[in-house]
Formats: sequence, C-alpha cells, structure tokens
Amino acid sequence: MKVKTNLYDQIAADIEVQIAQQVLRVGDKLPSLRLICERYSVSQSTALQAYYQLESKSLIESRPRSGYFVHRSPNRNLGLPATSTPVHGTAGDMHDLISRVYRDMGRDGAVPLSLGVPALALLPVAKLNKGLLQATRKLKGSGLEYEQVQGSEHLRRQVALFYSGEGRSLGSDGLVVTAGCMDALSLSLMAVTQRGDTIAVESPVYFGILQLAKSLGLTVVELPTHPQTGIEPEALKKALMTKKINACLLVSNFNNPLGSLMPDEHKKEVVKLIQQYGIPLIEDDLYGEVYFGNERPRSCRSFDDSGLVLWCCSVSKTLAPGYRVGWVAPGKFKDEVLRLKLYHSIAGTTITQEVIAGFLETGRYAHHLRGLRHTLQANALRYSRAIAEYFPEHTRVSRPQGGFMLWVELDKRIDTAMLYDRAVRQKISFAPGAMFSLQNQYSNCMRLSYGMPWNETIENALRQLGRLII
Amino acid sequence: MKVKTNLYDQIAADIEVQIAQQVLRVGDKLPSLRLICERYSVSQSTALQAYYQLESKSLIESRPRSGYFVHRSPNRNLGLPATSTPVHGTAGDMHDLISRVYRDMGRDGAVPLSLGVPALALLPVAKLNKGLLQATRKLKGSGLEYEQVQGSEHLRRQVALFYSGEGRSLGSDGLVVTAGCMDALSLSLMAVTQRGDTIAVESPVYFGILQLAKSLGLTVVELPTHPQTGIEPEALKKALMTKKINACLLVSNFNNPLGSLMPDEHKKEVVKLIQQYGIPLIEDDLYGEVYFGNERPRSCRSFDDSGLVLWCCSVSKTLAPGYRVGWVAPGKFKDEVLRLKLYHSIAGTTITQEVIAGFLETGRYAHHLRGLRHTLQANALRYSRAIAEYFPEHTRVSRPQGGFMLWVELDKRIDTAMLYDRAVRQKISFAPGAMFSLQNQYSNCMRLSYGMPWNETIENALRQLGRLII
Repeated sequence: MKVKTNLYDQIAADIEVQIAQQVLRVGDKLPSLRLICERYSVSQSTALQAYYQLESKSLIESRPRSGYFVHRSPNRNLGLPATSTPVHGTAGDMHDLISRVYRDMGRDGAVPLSLGVPALALLPVAKLNKGLLQATRKLKGSGLEYEQVQGSEHLRRQVALFYSGEGRSLGSDGLVVTAGCMDALSLSLMAVTQRGDTIAVESPVYFGILQLAKSLGLTVVELPTHPQTGIEPEALKKALMTKKINACLLVSNFNNPLGSLMPDEHKKEVVKLIQQYGIPLIEDDLYGEVYFGNERPRSCRSFDDSGLVLWCCSVSKTLAPGYRVGWVAPGKFKDEVLRLKLYHSIAGTTITQEVIAGFLETGRYAHHLRGLRHTLQANALRYSRAIAEYFPEHTRVSRPQGGFMLWVELDKRIDTAMLYDRAVRQKISFAPGAMFSLQNQYSNCMRLSYGMPWNETIENALRQLGRLII
Repeated sequence: MKVKTNLYDQIAADIEVQIAQQVLRVGDKLPSLRLICERYSVSQSTALQAYYQLESKSLIESRPRSGYFVHRSPNRNLGLPATSTPVHGTAGDMHDLISRVYRDMGRDGAVPLSLGVPALALLPVAKLNKGLLQATRKLKGSGLEYEQVQGSEHLRRQVALFYSGEGRSLGSDGLVVTAGCMDALSLSLMAVTQRGDTIAVESPVYFGILQLAKSLGLTVVELPTHPQTGIEPEALKKALMTKKINACLLVSNFNNPLGSLMPDEHKKEVVKLIQQYGIPLIEDDLYGEVYFGNERPRSCRSFDDSGLVLWCCSVSKTLAPGYRVGWVAPGKFKDEVLRLKLYHSIAGTTITQEVIAGFLETGRYAHHLRGLRHTLQANALRYSRAIAEYFPEHTRVSRPQGGFMLWVELDKRIDTAMLYDRAVRQKISFAPGAMFSLQNQYSNCMRLSYGMPWNETIENALRQLGRLII
C-alpha cells in the first residue's frame, strides 16, 4: 500500500475503514472536529480537510448545527460485469437507435444520463470567456486569419509542455491540432487504413468509432475486454495471428463505455505486439485526464519508440466540447495526417485554439482538472451506490478508475432498447448497450453518465429507472 | 443598356466615356465640382459622389488643393486568355509546388500575391470581436456545449433568410453547417462518390479540389473552360456522352483561378444535363458574394428542382477565414452528409457559428460586403492596369466580374514554376499555373490575388515581377 503523505488522508482513511467495518454505521454521528484534533494531534483545518474528503466521497454528510453523520453505506456490493465475449457475424444496425438517443437528448426537462460530456455546471465558463477576450487581443487579426494547417504553434507548444512528464517527449512539431478527438481519430484512420482493411477495437466501445470505421469501409474485429483492465494482450495476439489486422484502435485509459484502464504492463505488451506485426495503433486517450488515482495513467505512446502509435486527445470531455479543439501525435504518419487535414478542411478554428493554449499556459487547465476529478470521483461513488440501492438483483456495474461513465449489466432477459423507450416517456435517457457494438449484442446493458452534479433529481431518476427494469 | 437610376451614375458614366474616347487625357484636370453642379443641375454632394465613383475605379485621382485629374488610362489593352484546352494523360505531381508556395506565404516581408483570402485590412475585425462578446452572452454556456450536428439553428435560419431572394427557397432545415467551404466540398464528395468514380471539373481549377478528389481515389476529368463564361455546357455534354461521369464539381461564380462567371443560360443547361444523366452537381459558390455587377449572380441550385445540386458556400473568403464557418445545402443527399459530418467531427465550433448568425441578422454582413465589393472592384482595375503597364508583350489577363483573382497567361516559353523561385528571392510570391491542374499544364500561367489594399509596395512588386519575366 502506498504510504499516505498527508495527515488528513490518514485520518480520512481510518474513518473510511471504520465505516466499511461497520464500527461506524449509517446515521451514526461522527466524532466532533475538536475530538479529532485531540486524538490525532492535528489542527482544526486538518481535521476539517479529512471530513471534507469523506464528504466528497459521499460517505458522511454534514447536518447544519448538528455535526457530521455517516451518510450511507451500500446495502450490497454489486458484482463487476464479466470480461466481454464479443460474438461475430450477427451484424445489427444500431444507427436508428443512436439517432433516437441523440434526438431525445436535446429534449427539455429530461434527465440526460446518456450525456457524453460533463455537465456545463462543471465547466469554467467565465474563465474561458475571459480567455476568449484575451485571445482577440493577442492574436493578429483577432483570429480572423487562417491558422497554420498543423494548428496553432502556441497550442502545440503548450500541449507538449503539459505532457512533458510522460515517457517520450511530444515536441510541438510532432503534434497536429484537430477539431476535437473525433477529427483526430478520423484523420488517423484515413491515414493508416484503406477501404476493405480490418481494425481491432475493444468491445463494447464508443459507437462513434464503429460508425466511422464502417463509413470508411473497414471491417471491425471486436476484442474481449475486461471492465477494469481493458483488452487482454493475449486476445489481441491471437487476433493478429489468425486474422489480417491492419490497425488497432484502443481507448487505453477509461474506455467509453467500460471505464477500463489498461495496466502499464498490458500497454507495453500491446505496443510490443503492434511493433512485431508492424501495424499502427490509434490510441484514443481523451479521458486520460479524468483519473481518480494519484497520477495520470501513461499512454501506450509513451512506451513506443517506433512511431507506430497515433496518440489522439482533446479538451472536449474535460473543458470545452463546443470549442472543437483536439490533437493527434501521429508519429511516423504525420505527413499523411497533415495532408488529409489540409485537403478536408484546410485549418481549424483559430481563436478557440488560442484560448485553450492560454488555459494550459497559465495553469488554469491543471487547476480546473483537479476540481473536476474530485467531483467526478465523488459522483462515481454516489451514482454507484444509488444503482446498488435501486436496481434489481443480479445487476452488475463497472468500477471505473476515471472518466464519467458507468457500464451496467442487467439480467439477460432485459432488453435495454425497449427499456429506453419506457424511460424516455418518464423523461430519463440513457445509452442502451446495443449502441456499443456492431454485432447486435449487449442488449441487456446500458451506459450511464455521472457527469451531472449529484442531486435529488438524479437520485430520483435512478430510483425510477431501477423500478422500470422488470 | 440598363437605365441608370442615379444622377451621379450618369455623370460618372459620361466622364468615363470622355476618358475612354480621349476627350479627357491622362493628366488632364477635370471640371471643378462647381462646374459639374451647374452643368448637370445637381447638388455638390451628387457631383462629389460621381467623382468618388470614378476615383474608386482608379480613373481619376484627387490632388490636395488642386482638384481632380485623369489618373491613367491603360497604354494597351491586354487580350483575354483563350478557352482552356486541358490535356489528359500527362499527370504531374503539383504537391511539392503547392507545399513550397504555402511555406513561402508565411514568410515575413514578402508581398503575398499568392494569397487565397482578402487581406486583414479589408475585414471588419472590431465588429466581429464585438459579435464574439455578444455571442458569449447569448449562448447557453457561452458556446462551450456541443452544437447540433446539423449546425446552429440560428445560423441556418439567417443563411436561409439572406438568400431568400434566390429562385428556390433554402429553408433552414435544408442546410448543414460546415467548417468552411472545403469541409462542405469534402462532405459532399464523400456523400456522392466512391473510390474509383470519375468527376468533371473546370480547368484550371482550385488545386484544393484536385487534391481532395485525388485523395478520395477519384479520377478527375478537366473540362475546357472560358475565362469569362466558365465551362461550355456542350463540353460537359460531350464528356457525359463519352465517359462514365459520376458527379460534377463546378465553381459557378467567379471560379478560382479564372474568375469566370457562368451565364444563367449555361447554368440552366448544366442543371438540365445533370438531371438528364441523374448525377449530382457539387456547386462551389464561395465567391458569389463578391460580384462587381448590379446583383448577386444566381446559383445553379436556384435552377434545380431535382435535389441533385449540393450548394456549398462559406464566409471564409469574405469575412472570417479563421472562423471556419461554411454550409452546404445538400438537396436529396442531406441524410448522408449529416451522417458523415457526425462520424468525422461530431459538430462544428459553436461560438463562431453564433457570431456569423448575428452578423447576418443585423445586416452587418450585407453592409460589409458592399464595401468589400467596392474595394475589390477598384483593385481589379488597378492591378490589371499595372500588369498591362509592366508585364511583357503577349501577356494575356482575365477580366473577372467578381472575386479577387487574376489569371495571367504569359508567353508559352515562360515556366512560372521557375519564375516563382526567382520572385520569392525578391520577396514576391504568386501561385504558379501548374498548381491548378493535375495534368502538368498551365506552366506559362499564374494566379495573382488582388485581395490586398492597393499601394506603392504592390505596384512595385508588380513592376518587379514584370521585369523578372524574360
């Protein structure tokens, strides 16, 4: 176990164990802050910090003028979904389902548990507006001029600096700015594959990747994926040995929808494999900043010295979805990616690139991320507990170590596409599992986003959703 | 002849004729404003308006405290380039040449006659910045949220209103917002063609179209094109009869680089032909607002009732290149275009769409365009006259009725790619003709932009360039 460096971490950990062991039970009053100060010989602010931490995890709650109480402990622990065993050859068309979910998302008054981004309330709107004003002053022509095809030099430099702790230096010249991560994936796929090629991906996986691959005429091989550790390198190895795979596309950190995080050892093995077979790996790493551990997980790219990894990232899931700013480090495929970007769209929006560059440079992005991670980690616990409380028996749920998605597996007999229609009538939307495979599977699963601030409306929606599952 | 409705138009026209007939010669002093007032029985402001008009055309100049003088009349009239006769089967790679021109454009101190957009000095920077501020206030979440896949509803409504004078109503639902016109062309081509298909285009034509088509695996048939009236419908008809053409892509109004404008009769015929053959026409109309005549030329789309025309446009060449805002009215291909947009980039930048919507709504765009057209028309004359004066004999030059490009044809023995290298050393850049065909031709031609404010530096650059042509 890692040694805790802060006193308040130690205190919080102690109390968390007491709650888990039911030394302290739901509804119990916690020791007063003064008592904590005496017991641990710490200042009042340290004691308070410990309680804040427990509160952010939803383990305790403060009641005005009464002190702190044990808030809730799960009445049962839900199991994890098993490693997926994707079927093949049962192609279904999930396009209609996806269109319906998209359409319903925009409706007023619905609780959008299907949301693909953190809620506006978690984003630093005012600070970004200030950044916009500064950018109009700083940029020649206030950003009316075409940006370089490769993207703002300022932004590329700041991104390279932001990730300079990683294994292999990015360098501002090794980056190409894109219109969000989807554009990065699209350019990467177009650069390294041809119509008729086959790519290997996780399963379940973000439907956008499947749709894009299909529209580019690619065959998709879905690999068995563990809800906590992602694809097994062995499964990839087997696929490479038995099939002609032309490229891999993996969401290495906090895969959407599973939340899985590939351990470093797996990342190294995957990189070794793609090097051995000489095929590119498109690494979709757009959730990497939203980690709940002590440090950012590494990318596959950071273990690669061959230039075969195209590392894709953006600020769409953490800061400014509507700005459409992302980037790719395309390794040895840089020239081709640049050419495609020029041909398809010439350049990206100038001013939003500058705003993001400024946000990185001033440390505002790092500051914002600290708060966002804190909130989302607490949300993950709160939403999970509500599911444990309100969903029927045999429900399984992922335990993500980052991101803002829960993957819920229901009884085999439940069809979440049908459940979806009932839920929408009750003004609750979620993403049915069938959206996350081209193979007409995961029909008893759903993806729930915990990107909205926790409140009674959310809790009620989850309770209601639990009741609808019959 | 159209009846002049304004008195000052009549006066200006009278004087223009006097200059053309050498009743008034270069250097002659013009009648005083008072004399004009007496002669025509008009107010001083009307007389002044007439002189302003002549001045904007560069026909007369005012000298402080001396009055107005005949400025310059061309010492010779240059001929028009002939209708192009594109060759086939001599494929050249213009990619390196294009890369060189792009690279040199960014260098400090060079006179960028190769520029693809009007200079910053002609764009309403301050007003757009104000619009940006207003947009942050008006948009929910200040534009941080994802925009609809189809694009801002506000923008689509305003675009539909702006073009409501045209033949067939657009309707906001018939439009899809894109990241500039190149993105509109790219989505359109991907929607209506497949790898291996053949498309017909003008020749010479904007290299970006050729590069995009090539990268999508399309074969390009270049059609003979007249510098004033664009492609001959007869040539298209012949191509359709003798080859399997899967789609047409035409720059109907002020083609880049020729400046050609298809007469309405030709547009009607082309629309009839594509209907007859049942193939789509991608209409690139991004220069249509920069007309020098009395009204905006019509689009091919406005003559179509089949839904086969995909009409592409943007504000990149008139207002805000770096905003990346354009649109396409994809007719019957709307679903496919929308799907591709979703797959490749999800949505466009939210805030810049709102700024442009506001600019259209308040009439600021129309106002800005009036000034821009005025300046560019005057520039066209000034640049053309300088070319007539400084370029060698046998030079031919286009006479564009809009846009901001001149197409210059030099003696057959001149290689403009080699001339380019000499010019760049003198800090002058232009676009060599070979960039505008896939067939290794037009090597004695060049495209010159008149999008920069006319001044001594420009005149010197044109003089120097003329001297370099040996």
